[in-house]
Amino acid sequence: MRKVAESTVRRLSLYLRFLEEFEGQGVGTVSSGALASRGGTTSAQVRKDLSFFGSFGKRGLGYPVPELADRLREILGLKRRYRVGMIGAGKIGSALVQYRGFKQRGFDIVAIFDSDPAKIGRQWNGLTVLDIASLEKELAHRPLDMAVLVVPAEVAQAVTDRLVALRIKAILNFAPVQLSVPDDVVVKTVNLALELETLSYALASR
Amino acid sequence: MRKVAESTVRRLSLYLRFLEEFEGQGVGTVSSGALASRGGTTSAQVRKDLSFFGSFGKRGLGYPVPELADRLREILGLKRRYRVGMIGAGKIGSALVQYRGFKQRGFDIVAIFDSDPAKIGRQWNGLTVLDIASLEKELAHRPLDMAVLVVPAEVAQAVTDRLVALRIKAILNFAPVQLSVPDDVVVKTVNLALELETLSYALASR
Repeated sequence: MRKVAESTVRRLSLYLRFLEEFEGQGVGTVSSGALASRGGTTSAQVRKDLSFFGSFGKRGLGYPVPELADRLREILGLKRRYRVGMIGAGKIGSALVQYRGFKQRGFDIVAIFDSDPAKIGRQWNGLTVLDIASLEKELAHRPLDMAVLVVPAEVAQAVTDRLVALRIKAILNFAPVQLSVPDDVVVKTVNLALELETLSYALASR
Repeated sequence: MRKVAESTVRRLSLYLRFLEEFEGQGVGTVSSGALASRGGTTSAQVRKDLSFFGSFGKRGLGYPVPELADRLREILGLKRRYRVGMIGAGKIGSALVQYRGFKQRGFDIVAIFDSDPAKIGRQWNGLTVLDIASLEKELAHRPLDMAVLVVPAEVAQAVTDRLVALRIKAILNFAPVQLSVPDDVVVKTVNLALELETLSYALASR
């Protein structure tokens, strides 16, 4: 499969959401224009994005909703469930564990780790917070597909190195640092202050 | 000022973080190579990003750290503080209110609103959760610069329309919907499930 830009992947995720709404409403076919207007983009962009992955739909008839949704789920790797570990049981971790959007998309949080004795052993959404010291032992027999990293910046790289050694290939990082990982590990960093800075930039540059 | 891509703005934010670390260590000048290696990019990219905003530094001498940091703060609109309202007092809202990264960057959460009677009147980080019904009354005499929207998808557009009517020009949206706003309002949507989907895509497309 050709490498596509992250912005394309994000649009595919959005299209899938709209298609699923259409599915729920019993809509059989949808035009590129309808997908575009919901995604804040153009028909040409929709057609271009989808053309990366083969041909869908027939000219003038629109895209068949269930088939296209299914194909997008396949492209996005959403035809399976993922075992996700939450590394860090702070405020953000707590909110994420209870975030329904993850489970709805197939991301099951199956383990939570922290280093704080006050948190270890607590029950969180049916899971017991485990000691990060036992990370290797706990995951030896139940590997994770992904980790969500919500630890302080100063320990993020050390924890990442341990996750990499455990052969975890995908990390969603909330620590405000750039992580070094081998080429076969994918890291996506979410920096919430930085999101606000894109807004302050927009306000300042008027 | 010319319009620059969001990816450029994000890199500028990262450069600023590194420059502030260098400042803290008393480093006087920094090369584009040093900034690049910290930001996971190239020297050429650093020079190109900075050239958008005028000329910095002298060839062969590197960039003067305090001056460049100050200029980036100016470009990013970070030489002032922002009054930010949290709209929605759920789990994510709770985590964000306590998130120190916001205050450190000049984003002060000054008001929290919710519609749930069980939450209204509670104390959160020194703030009282206010009734969303009184949004207009509460903000009439103390306007907000920005709003963080953490409400259910089905009410997000209606709340946005009220924020727009209150002349709030910047919204950080956590609701999984595409918001319609006038051209002079900037919206940045953060979709955490979608972040995981960029990872599942990366795993699936190997």
